[in-house]
Amino acid sequence: MEYRKVGKWGLKISELSIGSWITFGNQLDLETSKALIKAAVNNGINFFDTAEAYANGIAESMLGEVLKAYRRSDIVVSTKIFWGGNGPNDRGLSRKHLLEGTWASLKRLQMDYVDLIYCHRPDPEVPMEEVVLTMDQIVRNGLALYWGTSEWSAEELERAHQTAKQLNCIPPVVEQPQYNMLVRERVEKEYAPIYEKYGMGLTTFSPLASGLLTGKYIKGIPENSRLARYEWLRKRFEETGLFSQATFEKLEKLQKISLQLGCTLSQLAIAWCLKNPHVSSVILGVSKMEQFEENIKAVEVKEKLTDDVMAEIEKILA
Amino acid sequence: MEYRKVGKWGLKISELSIGSWITFGNQLDLETSKALIKAAVNNGINFFDTAEAYANGIAESMLGEVLKAYRRSDIVVSTKIFWGGNGPNDRGLSRKHLLEGTWASLKRLQMDYVDLIYCHRPDPEVPMEEVVLTMDQIVRNGLALYWGTSEWSAEELERAHQTAKQLNCIPPVVEQPQYNMLVRERVEKEYAPIYEKYGMGLTTFSPLASGLLTGKYIKGIPENSRLARYEWLRKRFEETGLFSQATFEKLEKLQKISLQLGCTLSQLAIAWCLKNPHVSSVILGVSKMEQFEENIKAVEVKEKLTDDVMAEIEKILA
Amino acid sequence: MEYRKVGKWGLKISELSIGSWITFGNQLDLETSKALIKAAVNNGINFFDTAEAYANGIAESMLGEVLKAYRRSDIVVSTKIFWGGNGPNDRGLSRKHLLEGTWASLKRLQMDYVDLIYCHRPDPEVPMEEVVLTMDQIVRNGLALYWGTSEWSAEELERAHQTAKQLNCIPPVVEQPQYNMLVRERVEKEYAPIYEKYGMGLTTFSPLASGLLTGKYIKGIPENSRLARYEWLRKRFEETGLFSQATFEKLEKLQKISLQLGCTLSQLAIAWCLKNPHVSSVILGVSKMEQFEENIKAVEVKEKLTDDVMAEIEKILA
Amino acid sequence: MEYRKVGKWGLKISELSIGSWITFGNQLDLETSKALIKAAVNNGINFFDTAEAYANGIAESMLGEVLKAYRRSDIVVSTKIFWGGNGPNDRGLSRKHLLEGTWASLKRLQMDYVDLIYCHRPDPEVPMEEVVLTMDQIVRNGLALYWGTSEWSAEELERAHQTAKQLNCIPPVVEQPQYNMLVRERVEKEYAPIYEKYGMGLTTFSPLASGLLTGKYIKGIPENSRLARYEWLRKRFEETGLFSQATFEKLEKLQKISLQLGCTLSQLAIAWCLKNPHVSSVILGVSKMEQFEENIKAVEVKEKLTDDVMAEIEKILA
Repeated sequence: MEYRKVGKWGLKISELSIGSWITFGNQLDLETSKALIKAAVNNGINFFDTAEAYANGIAESMLGEVLKAYRRSDIVVSTKIFWGGNGPNDRGLSRKHLLEGTWASLKRLQMDYVDLIYCHRPDPEVPMEEVVLTMDQIVRNGLALYWGTSEWSAEELERAHQTAKQLNCIPPVVEQPQYNMLVRERVEKEYAPIYEKYGMGLTTFSPLASGLLTGKYIKGIPENSRLARYEWLRKRFEETGLFSQATFEKLEKLQKISLQLGCTLSQLAIAWCLKNPHVSSVILGVSKMEQFEENIKAVEVKEKLTDDVMAEIEKILA
Repeated sequence: MEYRKVGKWGLKISELSIGSWITFGNQLDLETSKALIKAAVNNGINFFDTAEAYANGIAESMLGEVLKAYRRSDIVVSTKIFWGGNGPNDRGLSRKHLLEGTWASLKRLQMDYVDLIYCHRPDPEVPMEEVVLTMDQIVRNGLALYWGTSEWSAEELERAHQTAKQLNCIPPVVEQPQYNMLVRERVEKEYAPIYEKYGMGLTTFSPLASGLLTGKYIKGIPENSRLARYEWLRKRFEETGLFSQATFEKLEKLQKISLQLGCTLSQLAIAWCLKNPHVSSVILGVSKMEQFEENIKAVEVKEKLTDDVMAEIEKILA
Repeated sequence: MEYRKVGKWGLKISELSIGSWITFGNQLDLETSKALIKAAVNNGINFFDTAEAYANGIAESMLGEVLKAYRRSDIVVSTKIFWGGNGPNDRGLSRKHLLEGTWASLKRLQMDYVDLIYCHRPDPEVPMEEVVLTMDQIVRNGLALYWGTSEWSAEELERAHQTAKQLNCIPPVVEQPQYNMLVRERVEKEYAPIYEKYGMGLTTFSPLASGLLTGKYIKGIPENSRLARYEWLRKRFEETGLFSQATFEKLEKLQKISLQLGCTLSQLAIAWCLKNPHVSSVILGVSKMEQFEENIKAVEVKEKLTDDVMAEIEKILA
Repeated sequence: MEYRKVGKWGLKISELSIGSWITFGNQLDLETSKALIKAAVNNGINFFDTAEAYANGIAESMLGEVLKAYRRSDIVVSTKIFWGGNGPNDRGLSRKHLLEGTWASLKRLQMDYVDLIYCHRPDPEVPMEEVVLTMDQIVRNGLALYWGTSEWSAEELERAHQTAKQLNCIPPVVEQPQYNMLVRERVEKEYAPIYEKYGMGLTTFSPLASGLLTGKYIKGIPENSRLARYEWLRKRFEETGLFSQATFEKLEKLQKISLQLGCTLSQLAIAWCLKNPHVSSVILGVSKMEQFEENIKAVEVKEKLTDDVMAEIEKILA
């Protein structure tokens, strides 16, 4: 396992990490969670990601319960604030919700601080000044060591940095976007001008495009798969246009490459993300031990992705 | 119930809110207060306003006792500092009174923080630098999430914002002025140039002009009414010149409009305040359950205030 | 008793105040101290001054023990840091001593904060940047509400204010110099250009010039007087050149005026200090109840100091 | 014992001080440590240096256990953060390690704050902005009173000061370099332009060049000496090129001077360091009581180092 810096900053996180979206508090019980985190740590993973929104806070409670077995400085824990409930002040990036959300997350996590705290989305309803001053306060008061953003546009990030500079505030250090073989635009194009400029790191989610890149949907939606269980996910899929014949053709070609490399399509897809030097960590969403054991090997597959192989993949994806 | 942002800022408060002036600790006992707040919450009200000055702190103590039944992040609580007692340092906006007053208010409210804290009046005896630095400290230390002013002039607000900018301090976000059909000058004229400029919100009090706009004084002062009980209020009234034949004529015309709309004059008066887009919340001072039940319906009356009705009202008030 | 602002700032202190130099922990036992403070409070005095140096901290311990009977916000307490002991870091204005001294003083005073904290002398060995940043930290952390200086030159005060501005720090608000009919230079000449400029207030000590202005030394040093007991004080006196025939002649003329006004020379001397509009409070050092009862009446004598009387005094002092 | 200011700053430390590298938690048991510190304090030493790296934290634990017998303000304690363990975030100057390292050090030391905290090395992997903002936070939160660096280049120190100025942060006040008769370059040449500019003080280590300047290696490596026990030290020595015939010849000449002065070579070497006016304190690494008793007399030897003697030494070292 390689440890990468978060952009230009001092924090080091494992190139693969464990997310808790959908899985913690839903598909995973406490015992399996403990086993999974233990396996992750044994494999060198030190970074664990959650959010107040995941399973209405249960994901944080479970992760906190599991992680208290580890030395605090050995692990890097992140959470995200945006959707904390249904009340008028329970969502978004107001100073009220950012602070109340952070306090509540830390209580659920049984921690004095998280390493990273994300603004889980941009909030056009709140002035950038309010957001940046509050995140700065959260960091300076030691509730979090660094702050970042998730799914913000390059333009919003620009404004965040300019505001931070103007108000002598600590700037964000990391973005958490979706990134995989099928969704590349934002990470590769939109953010291109600001990586260097602000030393921004990336922690990326959905390396398998919610399962599409496992190949399991090529021949229809299997029972018990996420898409079978969550109608909203199916809908979202359809809306993106990814659930199409064109995609399936690409997937079949990619599957051939993975066969040649002696790995699964999932492993190939994850390893492919790791080849992007702006990616600090690829967040895995695993709900079963076998799945973890499969995915973790992507680290080895990464070594096989020579320039030639990458060029071949590029031709397929183009 | 509509939730409105406080100016451009992220905090959201219900368009109607419950004040505690005169009522809490005076006209209301604890049981009625509990019932009233419960009814308010059931009707979607999330914003409760008090001040250290109300009933010498008893209003805060009562409100705190009642509100501890609710989840802290579901409610928005404000208090105001200025008149904390009779000692030389018990009033005004000195750093000493602002801090000591805030600490004492939080203790009475049984809270770690209020959402909003107001400078209850301007204090020409204290340099703006001292006021702004202290309010900034109160917010950065988490004793309040936002700060505002009450009955400050536009010129004083200008200076507060300039001082905040100069000293890299958090600026005020909200003003709490009097505002109703009969007292409009400050809100509509004086503040006009600064709403946009500073993203200032308003929480307004006295929507019924201390009862004048209920119509109950048209035919003299009834027993048991506020004016009957408080001579100082009667005097203040007389000094404003509002207690005049001209006013009573306007009130009779407005009463006709309310009859046409199928509502009471009080409801019309409150609804009229809500039509002003700079108003974030209209603070109700209710001492009886029936009064609350009457006033809360102003939200529905608001929908009936078409441009034509508003123009008609304008003609009467002019 | 009149309450005066500390310069342009918001804090209000009684024009007469109780100091604790020499008296507390030396001439006064706990019971007399309690009686004295009680009498002071009953006469409207709200300001009590001490220092870590007085009686090696015993003055603070005694004052704290006595003052805990009063509501914290009713009183204004000041202490001063400079001489905390004999160790290499026990004196002066280093960050180490300023912080350690403040923590120790607050413990002895049994308080969470003092209202005013003074740098008891200038310290040419410590950069102004270190002093100002530390005092700013003491105020922002709520250990003191305001900070000031004692016996700093106008030039040092200028540098303190410039440094505060440069580093965005809270500036000092008050100076504590010696001031009386016989020692006037610094207060009236040296500081003249900076009162307005920085809104500086004064709390002044030695209104009786260590007893000279009581008139008791005109005919030699009486037994049991301070000068009889403290040789170092006698020496210091002699060095100033005040202990001279010229002084005694002035004192006799002043005594005549006091007779005409129907008051004692002490009362005249204290009242004279109160006439200076830059003086926020005159600190009394009283060791006996009768002395307090005499001195407190200076407030009434002040009313008798018409322009004519002041001119007559000026002629004597010139 | 002379007390010297740390550069231009207010902190005063004894010219000789006790380090804990190799000795504490290794060569010294708790009883000997207590005796040694007691002897040091009796000789006027007030400054004790440690680091999280020394004996994996045991040095801090031992020092803390011993020092709790002393009044906190009588002593000056420093620690250093850089090597806290083997995990990815256990070393270097990231905000995560600086804060977690400081919290852990204070726990081991059983203290609320250290007087000085050092960045134990430069960390080219972490932006200067992150380091300076975190050290500033550590000082402003009262975890340390001052911060410094160890073995930073003049260029790195320049950048630290410029960054501090830009971000309105508290700058470093002290460097801890190696300095002795055989290793002089950095202290005398490289830092020359920045002493005045930033008022930088020095606490220097290795006054005896890890034992070379005791003279004991002139005739080979004795059993039980550090060089005999630590191969890595032997290697490091050899790499520096100091372990050479040229060195031994210098040592023999220096030994003759020490004989003439009536002192040992060690005492001469330590006293020589003290002659450099930029040195605030020379840190002694003592593992035996006799060694301490020998070294402490360097203070007296210093008085014998006239300009002539110094010139003679210079000729030998040149």
